[in-house]
Amino acid sequence: MSFSLPERIEIMEVCPRDGFQSVKEFIPTEGKIAILDALAGTGISTMEITSFVSPKAIPQMADAADVTAHFNAKWRGKITSVALVPNLRGAESALAAGVDWMNFVISASVDHNMANTRRTVEESIEELKKVCALKGETKLRLSVATSFACPFAGDVPPEKVVRVVEESLDAGVDGVTLCDTIGTTDPKYLANTLTEMRARYGDYPFALHLHDTHGMALANMLTAMRMGFSSFDAAAGGLGGCPFAPGAAGNAATEDMANMAERMGIPTGIDIPKLLAVVRSMKSDFGLTTYSHLAVADKGCCNS
Amino acid sequence: MSFSLPERIEIMEVCPRDGFQSVKEFIPTEGKIAILDALAGTGISTMEITSFVSPKAIPQMADAADVTAHFNAKWRGKITSVALVPNLRGAESALAAGVDWMNFVISASVDHNMANTRRTVEESIEELKKVCALKGETKLRLSVATSFACPFAGDVPPEKVVRVVEESLDAGVDGVTLCDTIGTTDPKYLANTLTEMRARYGDYPFALHLHDTHGMALANMLTAMRMGFSSFDAAAGGLGGCPFAPGAAGNAATEDMANMAERMGIPTGIDIPKLLAVVRSMKSDFGLTTYSHLAVADKGCCNS
Repeated sequence: MSFSLPERIEIMEVCPRDGFQSVKEFIPTEGKIAILDALAGTGISTMEITSFVSPKAIPQMADAADVTAHFNAKWRGKITSVALVPNLRGAESALAAGVDWMNFVISASVDHNMANTRRTVEESIEELKKVCALKGETKLRLSVATSFACPFAGDVPPEKVVRVVEESLDAGVDGVTLCDTIGTTDPKYLANTLTEMRARYGDYPFALHLHDTHGMALANMLTAMRMGFSSFDAAAGGLGGCPFAPGAAGNAATEDMANMAERMGIPTGIDIPKLLAVVRSMKSDFGLTTYSHLAVADKGCCNS
Repeated sequence: MSFSLPERIEIMEVCPRDGFQSVKEFIPTEGKIAILDALAGTGISTMEITSFVSPKAIPQMADAADVTAHFNAKWRGKITSVALVPNLRGAESALAAGVDWMNFVISASVDHNMANTRRTVEESIEELKKVCALKGETKLRLSVATSFACPFAGDVPPEKVVRVVEESLDAGVDGVTLCDTIGTTDPKYLANTLTEMRARYGDYPFALHLHDTHGMALANMLTAMRMGFSSFDAAAGGLGGCPFAPGAAGNAATEDMANMAERMGIPTGIDIPKLLAVVRSMKSDFGLTTYSHLAVADKGCCNS
């Protein structure tokens, strides 16, 4: 059987943004920084460190500037930093704080974009253009939320993804991530959309952001890898989800993704035992609810 | 991209055997029967209902004959029954109780076979031959434990699987299941072994038994499906593991497997909402610790 895989994959650690924003109780800035430092020591090359979002919308991210200042003092030049910016105002703050990449979000699904940002897709693209005009040397990534499934509209047809990607590439974004925001898409549907993207954009290096709500994140990751995609978002301890949707599951855990890749002989740069120690301390020292298969696994055997 | 999948898959519900045997506290027979009846109503066509194992080794299975008697009174002819038999003595009990299939276990890994059964592989094959001689009209399945990974010997080379399969087919088994007993194998390794099996045995319908210790069960299931394999074991609520290895994770949850298949347009016959109700009651009415992504999932959305 043909089983081709990328020679190497890149994992962006999103726990400090997508992970922390799903935690209701405010994590003190020094706690965030301690976890960020520990994660930075696991061999990760890129990290989404915070979100420059209104503290009214997501109080957990109120210390975005402080977290970024700490990161820049300690890690800039060693680890690539990414900050989520939901709008022009967030971009201005991110640029003032100093990050390597900004990550702007537009949903492929109109319904979700309206719910998430109170904008039409057209309005979001106009906002993105303004961020592009402002970004200077800072790079800008577009995350296409609900690229496969929408909580309101169901399956999202590839044309809706193409539309957002097309306009954003025209506007000048430097990278694009396709997001299974609600973590319910299946490998066949994902493969169909990715095939469409390949047909239109050749080997453009789309990244994938896969939530694990229905347990298919690794199957989806594998499917994307077998099509040659090699950049993935993941959150240590499987944190993540939505602050407004308790019960929605988080991202695929970085350790589970890295383990699958490494087991298949694909280097990730991540020191998995070290990462597992960080995940344990996120739980024991900071009371965070983590979930990853690797973290709970034990050696053993059974009948069959 | 080529993304071929089977037209239909068969899931064998193993919760009443592999699931229950991992539960330390004895589940009263009436509780077992209530869950078995509820699972029988979810559209499943085959169920591993118990194990005719020594009650000293696994006290939870001490009521194998009673459970089988109940099943036969209520479900025989409607649902195919399977009972695990670890040895000739177990087979005699199973045949006396009356089951459609017996499921005999031999490990591909010598070390695991010795630990699990206190027999060499040769001795296990001799025992299997005795069961074959006794089985009459009752069908006999061989589950090849540690077909991919062994807790003691690490990766298991395909030759070791072939050796057990070869001798067992010669002995007259009616079906073979390849088991990722400890749930740590990866899709590439699995695909390599399955490719070897295809090369030797053509389209022989091997079933797969995939534990989810490292979260790769669905990725492995997908890999097998893409190679045309269409029979899988699964346990409602993700129960399972090893009574002697607390912390080892269970089987892939039936509801997660069925959901992935159904989402990809592959019928399973399983009524997923009905199954989820059973899983909830396993937790609320019987205090069982269940884990499945689908059971905890909630509708929601998040930033990206």
